[in-house]
Amino acid sequence: MSIQISPLAESLPVFLKQHNYSAIAVLADANTKRFCYPAIKNFLPKHKIITLRAGEQYKDLTACEMVWQALTDAQFDRHALLIDLGGGVVGDLGGFCAATYKRGIDFIQIPTTLLSQVDASVGGKLGIDFHGFKNHIGVFKLPEAVLIDTVFFQTLPELELRSGFAEIIKHCLIADAAKWNVIRRRDLHQQDWNDLVAHSVAIKKNIVEQDPNEKGIRKVLNYGHTLGHALETHFLADPKRRLLHGEAIAAGMIAEAFIAKRKGLIEIGLLEQIEEYLFSIYGRVNLADADLEPVLTLTLQDKKNRNGEVRMALLDGPGSCTYDVPVTKAEMRRALDYYRT
Amino acid sequence: MSIQISPLAESLPVFLKQHNYSAIAVLADANTKRFCYPAIKNFLPKHKIITLRAGEQYKDLTACEMVWQALTDAQFDRHALLIDLGGGVVGDLGGFCAATYKRGIDFIQIPTTLLSQVDASVGGKLGIDFHGFKNHIGVFKLPEAVLIDTVFFQTLPELELRSGFAEIIKHCLIADAAKWNVIRRRDLHQQDWNDLVAHSVAIKKNIVEQDPNEKGIRKVLNYGHTLGHALETHFLADPKRRLLHGEAIAAGMIAEAFIAKRKGLIEIGLLEQIEEYLFSIYGRVNLADADLEPVLTLTLQDKKNRNGEVRMALLDGPGSCTYDVPVTKAEMRRALDYYRT
Repeated sequence: MSIQISPLAESLPVFLKQHNYSAIAVLADANTKRFCYPAIKNFLPKHKIITLRAGEQYKDLTACEMVWQALTDAQFDRHALLIDLGGGVVGDLGGFCAATYKRGIDFIQIPTTLLSQVDASVGGKLGIDFHGFKNHIGVFKLPEAVLIDTVFFQTLPELELRSGFAEIIKHCLIADAAKWNVIRRRDLHQQDWNDLVAHSVAIKKNIVEQDPNEKGIRKVLNYGHTLGHALETHFLADPKRRLLHGEAIAAGMIAEAFIAKRKGLIEIGLLEQIEEYLFSIYGRVNLADADLEPVLTLTLQDKKNRNGEVRMALLDGPGSCTYDVPVTKAEMRRALDYYRT
Repeated sequence: MSIQISPLAESLPVFLKQHNYSAIAVLADANTKRFCYPAIKNFLPKHKIITLRAGEQYKDLTACEMVWQALTDAQFDRHALLIDLGGGVVGDLGGFCAATYKRGIDFIQIPTTLLSQVDASVGGKLGIDFHGFKNHIGVFKLPEAVLIDTVFFQTLPELELRSGFAEIIKHCLIADAAKWNVIRRRDLHQQDWNDLVAHSVAIKKNIVEQDPNEKGIRKVLNYGHTLGHALETHFLADPKRRLLHGEAIAAGMIAEAFIAKRKGLIEIGLLEQIEEYLFSIYGRVNLADADLEPVLTLTLQDKKNRNGEVRMALLDGPGSCTYDVPVTKAEMRRALDYYRT
């Protein structure tokens, strides 16, 4: 998998010249069609554009059917290319549609949000949500290329920057203590985004290449995600309380750092650093008593579990993470209680 | 991929002992649940059974959703096993559901028809039909094992034997001229089925292992299938004229042998042998003038095409086949006309 961090005016024509596609389609959502598609349109030969409704709630089978139908109507053959232009939803769903259309056509990712640049676009996890379960149906397949142009997220709302930043923080916490000490001394607006995107992509690519199908070491990338995903899923149904991915993961990282501390894996000082910094950036998700049980139940559907037992990736030091640690429901309840108060 | 041809009473317990699954489900259709499931039930530990409606017309997304939902309801994790017990529909659809549930759980194929034993169960082509297009959505993924027990097809109706026999004939024609000369001198009831199953599986496995994703040599397995699939799809909508897979492929093999002859790839003698033998086993599919155009249009959706041009696997001698041969619509029309008269 080739990952290019450079202006699309350079990377896209080079990629297309190296390949010989029978047809090209761009998959966008309503937002990226309006704001990002104009930036690549002129570098493409004749192509088709397919537009999704914007939002995680449309990352479902119905949207897949629409994409498959559009590719079929255009009589795309196996030598066609799908370009996913958007954030995580477009990339995950578009990648899955490409990986399954006629048993697989090529696709490339052009991530347009900070979050998808540092996370979803790298690593080949593709899929859709299914009846309320996040990324429940999907496959692992690497794109032919990931083309990252940091020009896109410079126009993102602060909200989206914060959301992506959570994954950057995660990459520092699990793999680079020195970088963690740099970022935690700066607020959101003082960060060097170009540097951080390259840094995160390098860490993630290195881990994914060691273990593409998540049988082992790749699981460390799930730090913060067992409880984080459960929180995100729990609030998904309620538009007023819905969380951004990064907000949910930030809460998950605090709660899971607490579990790591309780298990003697990390010192109290690291837990305090994480807590203090993440609360300063993300605030605290308001968790009512009635939220706890459903959130804990959702962790049972986590893909890293085994025999109904929750297995977590937990920090075992600054810049270091272990995985497959069994965690009980009682331990998770205690962690959510700690987080709340 | 391990392929065992032996009684399931031996192969299934051995396989399960070598693995350590967190949960097991059996996918069957209404027929195999009744006739085949009793034969394996007692060799399995605690398991769940999921039942599909029987028939190619149910090999669709709706059935996938039902299977995914059943796995979710039973809280199956990534370390679970799905056992596909049935013919091509159960194997293709069940394999696809397993390959995409939580981005992939293990599955094994226990093919219960002659056709699926010699064809679908070997090779990892998984998928479903989509809006009338056969196997349009799917992935390539090999099962953990294929367990073949020839006891199943000994109770199959003659119809099903004939259907599977077409793929056996194809394997001989593309790869083993001596075996072709053996089988073509016997009628359906004189064949040595145990020998032919092992022979076909060995030929297919050998080809698939050289080229699992069908970038090259594997395409020879599509001899007879460009026109055959188009015929099968065309008649699918009409219950009175619907063809068995083997009947459609037999017609495709005759028409495509005619094209090979016209292109100077094979001698007239081989075309005559093929014609004579296949008509004697399968009779002639009744093609009206009005059928020709829709059938020819359907060949444009064939997955082996490139740039809207039909590419065929064509015999280039007895026991030998080439692939990626461009064929025009006029050539196909002439071949269908030849077949009809």
